[in-house]
Amino acid sequence: MDLKPFLSQIELELQRQVSRLDQPHTKQFHEMLTYHMGWTGEGAGPEAAGKRIRPLLVLLTTASCGADWQAALPAAAAVELVHNFSLVHDDIQDNSPKRRGRDTTWMKWGPPMAINVGDALFVMSNQAIIDLKEKYPAEIVLNAAEILHNTCLDLTRGQFLDMSYEARKDLGVEDYWLMISGKTSALLSACSQIGALLGAADEEKLEAYRSFGHYLGLAFQVQDDILGIWGDEKVTGKSAASDLVEGKNSLPVLAGLRKKGKFAERWARGPIKADEVEEVARLLASEDGYGYTKDASIQMTDMAINSLREADPQGEAGEALFELTNKLLNRDQ
Amino acid sequence: MDLKPFLSQIELELQRQVSRLDQPHTKQFHEMLTYHMGWTGEGAGPEAAGKRIRPLLVLLTTASCGADWQAALPAAAAVELVHNFSLVHDDIQDNSPKRRGRDTTWMKWGPPMAINVGDALFVMSNQAIIDLKEKYPAEIVLNAAEILHNTCLDLTRGQFLDMSYEARKDLGVEDYWLMISGKTSALLSACSQIGALLGAADEEKLEAYRSFGHYLGLAFQVQDDILGIWGDEKVTGKSAASDLVEGKNSLPVLAGLRKKGKFAERWARGPIKADEVEEVARLLASEDGYGYTKDASIQMTDMAINSLREADPQGEAGEALFELTNKLLNRDQ
Repeated sequence: MDLKPFLSQIELELQRQVSRLDQPHTKQFHEMLTYHMGWTGEGAGPEAAGKRIRPLLVLLTTASCGADWQAALPAAAAVELVHNFSLVHDDIQDNSPKRRGRDTTWMKWGPPMAINVGDALFVMSNQAIIDLKEKYPAEIVLNAAEILHNTCLDLTRGQFLDMSYEARKDLGVEDYWLMISGKTSALLSACSQIGALLGAADEEKLEAYRSFGHYLGLAFQVQDDILGIWGDEKVTGKSAASDLVEGKNSLPVLAGLRKKGKFAERWARGPIKADEVEEVARLLASEDGYGYTKDASIQMTDMAINSLREADPQGEAGEALFELTNKLLNRDQ
Repeated sequence: MDLKPFLSQIELELQRQVSRLDQPHTKQFHEMLTYHMGWTGEGAGPEAAGKRIRPLLVLLTTASCGADWQAALPAAAAVELVHNFSLVHDDIQDNSPKRRGRDTTWMKWGPPMAINVGDALFVMSNQAIIDLKEKYPAEIVLNAAEILHNTCLDLTRGQFLDMSYEARKDLGVEDYWLMISGKTSALLSACSQIGALLGAADEEKLEAYRSFGHYLGLAFQVQDDILGIWGDEKVTGKSAASDLVEGKNSLPVLAGLRKKGKFAERWARGPIKADEVEEVARLLASEDGYGYTKDASIQMTDMAINSLREADPQGEAGEALFELTNKLLNRDQ
């Protein structure tokens, strides 16, 4: 299925939403948002904008329920605006200077302005979801808004856990699942759930789509954790094993620590330097860090695919959902 | 009218909303919010919580339309949560160490956590407004949500202008009005507008209430600017003329600069020190800074009162609205 019509409509709807700030006295403010969204400034373009996976997921789900996906565009914009709000605040919180190869918003305009840019993107996500009222009954719109808001609270929960984990040395794999359920999975789950809601899916189908998004998010994050340690630099775009150098409590690390072996010993001794990364990564793999995580990745991927099968998505859009899932979860490689 | 029943119900509803984070793994996160709200931690109590003027305004407006104010409680909580979200982010942006005599959230837990605390309060305001659905038709809830979201975008606009003004030397009084319309007035206007909506007011009454909140906000801010330069330290709780030392582009300053007299000359020479504050304040008063601002304050207050008369609020709650306005705008003193 050709996704271009979806992608171009998504971009148009996003631009329409963000244009609320395109007014005489807030031109520069508007520019900060269009820069972050990847439309203007140095390095603007599709690469800077990102893949728009979340809005695609909304629209393909609606379409695969046999409904008009164009009517769901404001919801697609809403989830992408939530995602971007969280990225802008995340970059400040993590002190990250770059995102997708470009200066982050706070690097360009300072943290105070960037906090406000994130806030504005967040407000716009709320405005976008309410825009559904042009095409859907008020009860459905409230339903969609409720899913979105609950998801946003999950995001702040996940963010809290992520930040509070940094200082902790006693984390287990169960802490990991709790954190990524909020940080990564909640929004993807909201995408398929809202998409199904707007596709007038019945309760059972809705639950299957919700579950699909949930496991897709978990699988995606677990796979990202594998790539963060054993990934091919040429593919991931960041230096392999960078997660080890950053001391990130990713799933392979938490799984490896349970062995209380040589990896755990080395990890406890403090920051890992670039020149020992290869050796430590090998050590971690030999102490079940890779195996456990790979198993988890396969399991979550299977559960995502099973849930999607249960949802029984229809037509070309349904096929596209399977394709998107396979592509995201790297099943072909 | 005894406002205590209103105030205690507001506090209960706020606690109910914030309790969404009172869960096993987010206890500390929940504590950050309850600290900011003035309920827990050092110095907790009514002083730390603030006056809850915004939720009061919602409830009194609903009641003065002859409707059940208790049904409007989630909306009252929503506006107070928006207000508090903006305070938490404001304090980070302004680098303010203290609020109402206590350490600010970012001072206690650092900016990254505080950004997330503000975000969570914001999410909860969205959840609170949707909670209206228990008592009102879905169309009314969407309407209230829309007013709230538009107001939040105005807040970010006002915040952007405020921050971008800091570096500017060419500001006029018209820039001032634009900024405080967003930063102070928009939310108060939303309070009376949402209150009237939930009171089933007709279009004309709704507009009168909206206008009342708008001018109340302007009058309140202008008066605050006067107190920031010529206020009595014992009343305001901060050192008089502190706005001059901080170099704040308040209305008296912008009005005084228009004279291009001795005040403008001194202002252009850079930061004003504590020991010259009294003299500069006197200079500014003699060059129309005080007169213009006092006139504006009287004008905005009159317009607020006139709009309120037009709205024709009923019963004890109506009287309480006039009383609250007079108290806020210091008309008795």
